[in-house]
Amino acid sequence: MLHRLNTAVGSVRRSAIREFSRMAKETPGCIGLTLGEPDFDTPLPVRNAAKLALDAGDTHYIENNGTPELRAAIAGFERARNGMDYSSDEVIVTVGATEALFTALFGVLNPGDEVVVPTPAFGLYESIITLCRGTFVPLPTEDNGFQITREMLESVLTPRTKAIILNSPNNPTGCVYTPETLQAIHDAVAGRDIFVLCDDVYRQLVYTDDYHSFAEFRDLRPQILVIQSFSKPYAMTGWRVGYLLADLPVKRELEKVHQFCVVSASSTSQRACVAALDCDPTPMREVYRRRRDDALGRLRAMGLDVCEPQGAFYLFPSIAKFGLDSAAFCTRMIREAGLAATPGFCFGSDRHIRLTYCYSDDQLAEGLNRLERFIRTL
Amino acid sequence: MLHRLNTAVGSVRRSAIREFSRMAKETPGCIGLTLGEPDFDTPLPVRNAAKLALDAGDTHYIENNGTPELRAAIAGFERARNGMDYSSDEVIVTVGATEALFTALFGVLNPGDEVVVPTPAFGLYESIITLCRGTFVPLPTEDNGFQITREMLESVLTPRTKAIILNSPNNPTGCVYTPETLQAIHDAVAGRDIFVLCDDVYRQLVYTDDYHSFAEFRDLRPQILVIQSFSKPYAMTGWRVGYLLADLPVKRELEKVHQFCVVSASSTSQRACVAALDCDPTPMREVYRRRRDDALGRLRAMGLDVCEPQGAFYLFPSIAKFGLDSAAFCTRMIREAGLAATPGFCFGSDRHIRLTYCYSDDQLAEGLNRLERFIRTL
Repeated sequence: MLHRLNTAVGSVRRSAIREFSRMAKETPGCIGLTLGEPDFDTPLPVRNAAKLALDAGDTHYIENNGTPELRAAIAGFERARNGMDYSSDEVIVTVGATEALFTALFGVLNPGDEVVVPTPAFGLYESIITLCRGTFVPLPTEDNGFQITREMLESVLTPRTKAIILNSPNNPTGCVYTPETLQAIHDAVAGRDIFVLCDDVYRQLVYTDDYHSFAEFRDLRPQILVIQSFSKPYAMTGWRVGYLLADLPVKRELEKVHQFCVVSASSTSQRACVAALDCDPTPMREVYRRRRDDALGRLRAMGLDVCEPQGAFYLFPSIAKFGLDSAAFCTRMIREAGLAATPGFCFGSDRHIRLTYCYSDDQLAEGLNRLERFIRTL
Repeated sequence: MLHRLNTAVGSVRRSAIREFSRMAKETPGCIGLTLGEPDFDTPLPVRNAAKLALDAGDTHYIENNGTPELRAAIAGFERARNGMDYSSDEVIVTVGATEALFTALFGVLNPGDEVVVPTPAFGLYESIITLCRGTFVPLPTEDNGFQITREMLESVLTPRTKAIILNSPNNPTGCVYTPETLQAIHDAVAGRDIFVLCDDVYRQLVYTDDYHSFAEFRDLRPQILVIQSFSKPYAMTGWRVGYLLADLPVKRELEKVHQFCVVSASSTSQRACVAALDCDPTPMREVYRRRRDDALGRLRAMGLDVCEPQGAFYLFPSIAKFGLDSAAFCTRMIREAGLAATPGFCFGSDRHIRLTYCYSDDQLAEGLNRLERFIRTL
């Protein structure tokens, strides 16, 4: 019956990241710096809030868009912390940021519509765009320090451009967009009916005081869709809660996709998320910042060319000088040095590898030792 | 920006059930027999299993298709209880049955493909089919006691038919398909490349020993997709867990939709679901059975024409003799008698109303009293 399936599903590639993870797992003694997941458990007050909800029997259907309590808490949090002016009626609580992205892209794309994605980028974007029969339009940024100029963006815009996805801090580079990049994007899309998806899921893991989200451009409010997640800042990956912020008329349409796709996110998880918004992610962030400093210093001492990440928990050094493509580099590194990294081609950038520092100091240090020994052999 | 949204989203209607619920809520003193949700809390052992998982810090990413533990438990349960021969690799744990339906329909439909839905039917089917740019093809069954003959089904099959959705026990009628109906459907689809979605979410709430699922036809295994839910049998609506069973090659494609839509269901919920499969839903079912007997007796004593439901928790009496369409009937009943029911047009059957018996004996009795007084005025 395979010939009878949705042809768009057949054209979606499986995540190559998974194949490298499997290869690493099957190699005895191999360690990985591959996972994009906090190595902390969910904070105790958050878990306790969930347990209280379970004790109270709060296990029934809730409003599709999320509990009024959580939506109000999100709107208040975004206003107080990020200066956003979304009402609780402009919030859809989703099954992680992935469902927020899916709902947003499914909600705006007609077949053949183009979506501009600055690369390197999280592979999920291309997969969802393809599922929705849209056209993935990469906008390579690696030759411009992972920043975007107006000319670069204008060169890929067409009458079929429906949306652009911005991810700052970025997975896999850890870079954040400069005010100049944000202004250039603003000027390119202002006056055009292009949605701007701000995938800001790492914005609470930023190591600079000069972070700005594109969502601050309030003159473009009707075009802006903000994607957020509880996974990264609160170590809540398994809880599957994120949210989507959108201008009310647009949100009223997007909520139909959400409703007919999942009904709602878990009621227990939503109670926990109310408590999460009262948690301060600073201690966790400071651990990441220290690891970033250590790892960045090590990579530079090895002579690797790497942009200083200002957020998230990724490092994206160049491997161009070794003359290997990223899959060959990573395959050999697993086999010869017992270290797994994620090849850059998974993000549309074959001259880099991605390392994550969601690991203990010991594992991180040992991983970097193996990297150092490996590149000496090349 | 509304003109720039996915046109399929714009063509999906909002749930009319919700509008009637709102009208009922805004009418002082009005009570409702409208909710399709168990009035029990989730069993204590299930909630305790979730709390243990939280204490253990099991809050991290899990496998997209579900934890190996839960998938094995599901495969074992389906084998032991329902005689199904699905391996744990043929299980996708989903965000409720809704995501299982969405994943299945999105996974098989190309634009313009037709999906046959015997009506009356749960409105979600038409909404998802429309979102996926498929064509909803109703197959009215109300003049045939809610059963299907081969001739009826053949009359709506075309070369564009991609799937048929079977829901037994049925929402809104509570009827189950007879062996004759199942055989007729089998004979019509055998040898044709048509997927059969078995939405069997009420199969544990069956009040007959003679229940059979279409999924028992193992000669059609490659065509069959089984949709299940933890919501109804274990009173777990808020936990958002269901599952999809499919022949391995098909499942391997459908899992891509699931992965790029939601990543996975909640890890805490999945631990709870393992415990749920050890719970015996018999006591809950016996409560429903008693309520069904009481309510059915009352409706018949009022002179209403109603099929005996053999599962789920719905009653679907005919209102044809009152000369009102179902919306007018229900609107007047809210205003004049303080009772909310769900109009049959929401299910594609305008000559009926749906009552649910997920309510306390007192509320059910009072609701039926109000119904009786109301129809006397017509």
